[in-house]
Formats: sequence, C-alpha cells, structure tokens
Amino acid sequence: MNIYSIINKKIIFRLLGLLLVLESFFLFLSLIVSAIYNEECYKDFLITFLITFVVGGSAVFFTRKAKKDFGKREGYIIVSLVWVVFSLFGAIPFVLSGSMSSFTDAFFETMSGFTTTGASILNNIESLPHGILFWRSITQWMGGMGIIVLSLAILPFLGVGGVQLFSAEVPGLSPDKMHPRVRETAQRLWIIYVGFTAIEILLLWIGGMTFFDAINHSFTTMATGGYSTKQASIAYFTSPYIQYVITLFMFIAGVNFTLPYFAFKRDFNKVLKNEEFKTYLTITILFTLFISIVLFFTTNLPAEQSFRDSVFQVVSILTTTGYVTADYLLWAPLLTALIFVLMFIGGSSGSTGGGIKVIRVLIILKNSYFELKRLIHPKAIIPMRVNGKAIPQPLVNNVIAFVVFYLLIFLTGSVIMAGLGLDMESSMGSVAATLGNIGPGLGSVGPVENFSHIPDAGKWVLSFLMLLGRLELFTVLIIFAPSFWSK
Amino acid sequence: MNIYSIINKKIIFRLLGLLLVLESFFLFLSLIVSAIYNEECYKDFLITFLITFVVGGSAVFFTRKAKKDFGKREGYIIVSLVWVVFSLFGAIPFVLSGSMSSFTDAFFETMSGFTTTGASILNNIESLPHGILFWRSITQWMGGMGIIVLSLAILPFLGVGGVQLFSAEVPGLSPDKMHPRVRETAQRLWIIYVGFTAIEILLLWIGGMTFFDAINHSFTTMATGGYSTKQASIAYFTSPYIQYVITLFMFIAGVNFTLPYFAFKRDFNKVLKNEEFKTYLTITILFTLFISIVLFFTTNLPAEQSFRDSVFQVVSILTTTGYVTADYLLWAPLLTALIFVLMFIGGSSGSTGGGIKVIRVLIILKNSYFELKRLIHPKAIIPMRVNGKAIPQPLVNNVIAFVVFYLLIFLTGSVIMAGLGLDMESSMGSVAATLGNIGPGLGSVGPVENFSHIPDAGKWVLSFLMLLGRLELFTVLIIFAPSFWSK
Repeated sequence: MNIYSIINKKIIFRLLGLLLVLESFFLFLSLIVSAIYNEECYKDFLITFLITFVVGGSAVFFTRKAKKDFGKREGYIIVSLVWVVFSLFGAIPFVLSGSMSSFTDAFFETMSGFTTTGASILNNIESLPHGILFWRSITQWMGGMGIIVLSLAILPFLGVGGVQLFSAEVPGLSPDKMHPRVRETAQRLWIIYVGFTAIEILLLWIGGMTFFDAINHSFTTMATGGYSTKQASIAYFTSPYIQYVITLFMFIAGVNFTLPYFAFKRDFNKVLKNEEFKTYLTITILFTLFISIVLFFTTNLPAEQSFRDSVFQVVSILTTTGYVTADYLLWAPLLTALIFVLMFIGGSSGSTGGGIKVIRVLIILKNSYFELKRLIHPKAIIPMRVNGKAIPQPLVNNVIAFVVFYLLIFLTGSVIMAGLGLDMESSMGSVAATLGNIGPGLGSVGPVENFSHIPDAGKWVLSFLMLLGRLELFTVLIIFAPSFWSK
Repeated sequence: MNIYSIINKKIIFRLLGLLLVLESFFLFLSLIVSAIYNEECYKDFLITFLITFVVGGSAVFFTRKAKKDFGKREGYIIVSLVWVVFSLFGAIPFVLSGSMSSFTDAFFETMSGFTTTGASILNNIESLPHGILFWRSITQWMGGMGIIVLSLAILPFLGVGGVQLFSAEVPGLSPDKMHPRVRETAQRLWIIYVGFTAIEILLLWIGGMTFFDAINHSFTTMATGGYSTKQASIAYFTSPYIQYVITLFMFIAGVNFTLPYFAFKRDFNKVLKNEEFKTYLTITILFTLFISIVLFFTTNLPAEQSFRDSVFQVVSILTTTGYVTADYLLWAPLLTALIFVLMFIGGSSGSTGGGIKVIRVLIILKNSYFELKRLIHPKAIIPMRVNGKAIPQPLVNNVIAFVVFYLLIFLTGSVIMAGLGLDMESSMGSVAATLGNIGPGLGSVGPVENFSHIPDAGKWVLSFLMLLGRLELFTVLIIFAPSFWSK
C-alpha cells in the first residue's frame, strides 16, 4: 500500500507555514538594518518579507483545521523540507539586490548559511551592503538555533543517529515522548544560546570591532557557521585578543548545549564526567599542542603566534566553524593532513557543530577496541560503557551505520566532484567541507579561496551535501528509502 | 598474571624453523636459476640457502621435544612472525648481490614480495640477474600460497575478521576444529593454485613471452602480487592477447579459492549463488564499463584499447595485483578517484587479494541499508542474510571493527607519511597501496613510479602496513593489545 494517502499533509504545510512566518521576522530585521544604513537593498528585503509572510501566513490560515497529531514520517518530511524551503525564500534578497549573479549561487550561499556551513561563493564581501551581510549572518544564527532544537529534541524522537544517548539526560527530553516539555527545554537552551551570543558581542566590541562586525561575528561563531563580514575572515582582525575571544566562543559553541545548562545549575560534576566533553577537550589540546610545536620549529613564527594560529585553526575546523586566521594549506603536509582528519570528527552532539560528531567517534573507537578484547577472550561478556552507562548494541549499530553512510557519501560526493572536473584534493576537500558543515576545504576551495569557481551542477550537489550533513544523514536518506513509502 | 610464562615458546620456534626450511628450498630453486644463466649471484643464494637451512633446521632439531598442542595465542604470534622472519632471511640475496643498496630497501622489497603487495624500490629492473628476478617473483608466489591457507584455514580458527563466514562451507574447515583435515584441504587448494599457475605459464608462453617471463608473471599474477620482470610492468608487452590473458588470471586470483574447487566438482550452483562472487563480478563489470566509456569519449583511444586499458587497470587494482598497462594518474580526475575507491575494496575473501575484501564491503553496505529499514520500522525484526544465511550480530560487529581499524590505520599512516615529507596525495596513495597489498598508489608512488625515493623511516612504516594488511589487521594488532598478555 502506498503511504502517501495517509500522510498528514496539512500539518506539514501548517508547520512549514509557521516557520516561514518566523523567517519573515528575521527578514524584517535585515530590512531594518539596511534602512539604518540607508541602503537600497531595504526594498529587496521588503519584497522578500512580504512574499515570505504572505506565503507562510496563507499556509497557516488554510490549514487551520489540520489535525494536530503527526508521526515520525511527517517529522522526517518536515525537518528535511524546512532547510530547503528556508533557503529557497532566503536566497531571494541575494538575487534581487544583485549581490549574487545567479539563483544557484544565492541558493548555495543561503543553504550554506542555514546549515551553518559557511562555504561562500563571494569574492567581494566588503563591497556588499550591511543589510545583505547581516542577513547572511542571521541565516547562520537561525540555523544554529534550529540545530540545537533539532538535535536535542526532534531527532531523538525520530530515533536518528544515536542522539538519544545524551538527550535522555535532559529534563523534559525523552526519546519516547517528544511533546510534553519540548517548548520549555527549547526556551532554556535558546536563552543559553542568546546569552553566549550577547557576551561575545560585548567582548568583541570591547576589543575594538565595530558593533556591526561584533554582532555578525558573534552570530556566526555561536552557530559554528563561519561567515565573516571580511573577505580575509578573522585574519582581517590582527588583534590577538579578538582571535582568542573568538577561539573561546567557537570552543563553547562546539560543546553539547546541555552542559552549559548543567554548569549554570552548578552541577559541574556532570560536565567534568561527560566522556564526550573530555574527548572533545583532549582532541583540542593534543592537536593544538602538536601543531603549535611543529609550527614553532619549522617556521619563523614566534611562540605565541604559533600557538594562536594552531589553536584557532584547530578549534575552527574541529567545531566546523570555518573561520580562518592562517592558511593551513601552506603548512607542512603533515599538519594539513591533521586538519583534514579534524574535518571528519566535528563538534559535540547537541552543539551547533557538524561533522561525524565526537560522541560517535568515541563510540566507534571504543567498540573497535572492545572487539579486539572480545577476540582475545571470546567467551567473556564485555559491555561497553559511555558516561558509566552500558551502550545497547542497537545504538552502536546505529552509530556505525551513520559513520558508514557518512564515509560512503563522502566517497560518492568526491567521485561526483571529480567527475565535474575538480582535481582530487579539491574534490575531497569540497565534499568534506560541505558534508561536515565546515566551510573551507582543501585545494581550490581552501581557506583563502571560495566556492565561486565550482560548476553550477557542483554547487547543487554540495548544497545537498550540506543538507545531508546538517540533518544527520538519516533524516534525509530515509525519505529516499522505498520502504519509507510503503506500509 | 603475565601470560608470557605459559606460552608454548618451543612450538613457536619449531614451526618457524620448519617454515624456514621451506623457504630455504625456494632459495635453492633461485640458486638453480642463477646457475642456469651462469650468473654470479648463485653464490649469494648458496650462502643464504645455507644460513636459512641451518637456522631453520637447528630450530627444528632443538625443539623436537616441544609439546604439539598450542592455542590461539601461539597461533597469532606464529602467523605474525612468519612474514617478518621470511623477509629478514629473504632480503639477504638482494643485499649480497648488490641489487639493492641498503638492507632497508631489501627488506621493503622482500616484505612487499611475501605479502604479495608488489610495491618496489627498483628503478632498474631489467638490469638485474635472472636469479634475483626469479627470487623476487617466488617470494610473491610463496606469499600467495601462505595467504590461501592462512585465510581459509588458520584465520577462521583464530576468529579473525569475520572470515569464518565462508570457510565453514569448505569440507574439513570448521572454525572450531582446525586440525582434522587442514592438510588435506590445503593440498587441494594448492593443487588449484599450482594448476592455474601452470595454465597461465603455458598461455603466456604461447602468446610470445619468453619462458622465463611467462613463469615470473604467472607466479606474480596468481599471487595478485604484481612484481614484473620489466620496469614498465605489463605495458612492456603490447600484445592485447597477453594483456587479456593476464587480466583473466588476475580476475581468477581475486576469487575465493573454494569456488574453483566447487566448480571443478561441477557444483556451479554454489559458485553462481555466492553473493561475494556476484558482487565482485558486478563491481568489475560496472567500473570497467564506466571507465571504458569515459576513456573512449574523452581521449582518442580506439574502442578496443579503451576497454582493454579499463578492464586491465580495474581488475589489477581491485584484485590488488598492481600490474600496469596505463597510467591512471593521467586519466580524468574522476577516473583516478574511482581507481582510488577500488584500492579499498580489494579481492574476495579466501583469495590472494588484499584490501578490505568484497565480503566485508558487502556486509557493511547491507548492514547500513538494514539500519535505515530498522529506523522506519523500529519494532520489526529484520535479519540480514548473506548467501541465504542469517548473519549473527557478533560477526557483523567483527567486520565493522575491521573496517574501522582499516580506515584508522589508513588515516594514521597517511599522517605519518605526510610527517615524513610526502605530499598529501602521495601519503594517502602510498598507505592505501601498501595496506591494501596493491603496489602502485597515487602521486609520487603512482603506477609509473616506484618507492625508492621514500625516506628510510617511511619504508619501515610501509613495510609494517603491508604486514598489517596482509594478516587481516587483527592478527598483528591483537599482539599489541595489553589484554593479550594478561590472563
């Protein structure tokens, strides 16, 4: 039996409509910014605001009699569609204002924003109006908000990618019942998100950034997005203070957002005993120290800058932010290779970071080590534990399937990009950077380059990879599985 | 408690001794070849033969009272040591004859031989004496023999890497009892191996190869080794007939050796219903067709040569033989990327091919697809089947752990090689090519290059990777696990 007829299509339209109304509110904010700076593009935002508000509002109005209940199928469809619909409408100001020459470019840039990827097709960032730059940053900040709710509340309900592991600890979030206190929890997490953003704005402003730049960079730091208002990214701001502040906030943005929540409740034990956090911290420290030392001894950089360049790039790539203060492609091949490895690890679960995620890497490694133990003692029952809890086998399988799909998509994507004419390093780099929601990659899409030269077909492929990566693969893949559409 | 004291060390020495005596026999064969060609190096073989025979013989003699029974621990240690010991002794003629300038080079070349890798440090192959070339080919042929017994009889007993899956079907080979009919089965498989080698020699000789070249190439084809007596590899032999014959035998060498066994018993059903074989055949056909078509339309090669270049390189890399008739680094980046993908798949289980192996790739892919199904229907119990049999979860875990280790070692190895100064493509290429027991890689170790320029430390690292790959990782890794040495 085809499932199409029993899907609650009205509720899908209704929720998408509601979210479009939310998007129109942020478009209105950008309108205000352009108006403040007396920029022509305020008209483009007005038009887009009206279109988005009317379309969204109509969808809400005409589905007011929709049944409120919906299941996992509707959940998957809504989540997969939100990012696409947001990008379709969000791309309009970029095209209308003439900031980007084609809809493909504008869609790529917007999808890159909402997925907090940060891969850009722009090579003239400083020449764009404030309104457009602000909208660009806002897409990332909204995307970050969306991801926190998605990864801590919605995906566990859908059972995607082993995220149930940590979310069950948060009050109000249990894998089986999504509804009860989702709104309350989401509000708490958002308060933390907004709070950190505000503190960063203040600190950057104090450090000498303009207020406009401070807002934009704080938006894109907390979202681990990486869009900058400068073509040279953070390398433009030579102040070590500013670079360290951004490093700190990138690091925070890569932490599971339930941990600051516990920290504010003074439950520090829960933070310090969290194995994912410990692993995340260890990776950061080890990679930073190693790269600092190699940089110090193989270049003529002073010690402080070796450390700063190292820690900034390590945290930026690991958290999948993608800001740049040094071109890691000019480092020794070993260091570039290490950065490439970091691209796959990604941030913590429940953070705004992308990639495979630290918890999955941890589980995969632990499982493999335990497999070795089991080979030696085949009769012993050796349960694997994370955070003191035994991990059930189905969860391990889920994590493994995730990583396998991740690598398969990476391979397939690289082959497709190579087929579109990119050299091997750029093919792999562009796919790793978009699938992992990082931004800069390797080769011709390296940290001081951009994605403008990628052929149009490639931009659509990479946009799809951003979506796949951002939605933890399964959310999107599942819709393409034949059994999704049969009873 | 430390386990060292209860390990049956005498039986380890005894078996290694017996195997050294076997090696000395093949050294003697090379002595005869050099004598036939009136080459000086017969002396070097005589010396090495004597050393090897005396050392091996003494080990056997002094351990004649060793207890015959041994367990898995001894099994792991013996298997890991055999390849190392063989390479240590086997490297001597290369050094004595002056064919290679350092022991590092000679050890690398010998390990590359015994592991049937085929990565070479030679850039003057045609100038070497026949005896040395013959010994080089013989190391691969012996390695191939060893691998068949290892993968079909010994590793299943040790429980390594999910190989029990297929071996259980062969009469006399069951994972639980190794001893009963191992010798009988090994003999049957060797007869097939020797038989195919003999047929290939004949076919190549008929095709116009010298008898000496026909023998050498048949040895290294059936072993999926890839050592050639020509610097240009098979590209030297421009005859399409010769290239097709070699393609056919590479393909056969990449098949599980129990399948020809069934085929000879006219049980064709078992061959045609074997899912690993079907997958292996499908991969070969799809990659060959795709690459042929792209080559035909993007180069000015005639149709037949597009097909021949494609099928030869696809089969050579997939089976991890590593012969070359065309430089795939000069193909479109897409095609090079596809070749790189093939490097990871490898041959079938129970063949002489290396890599991850088709059966593991099949299980990983099936498992991931089933995981997607389980997400859609979380309550349904969906067992995964291969060859009509349900695959138990522990076996799936074992396979997954294997692939994870494989990729981790690939990553770590690439980072180490980059640290030794290789560019990224060459780092990844050299590691993929040695860990997968292929031979040629990418970049500076591509199909028309060799490994002579790799720094010494890198040659030792790559030699270790060949060993790891050849022994299905776990056999070696397990020895480094602390719990291996504790009760």
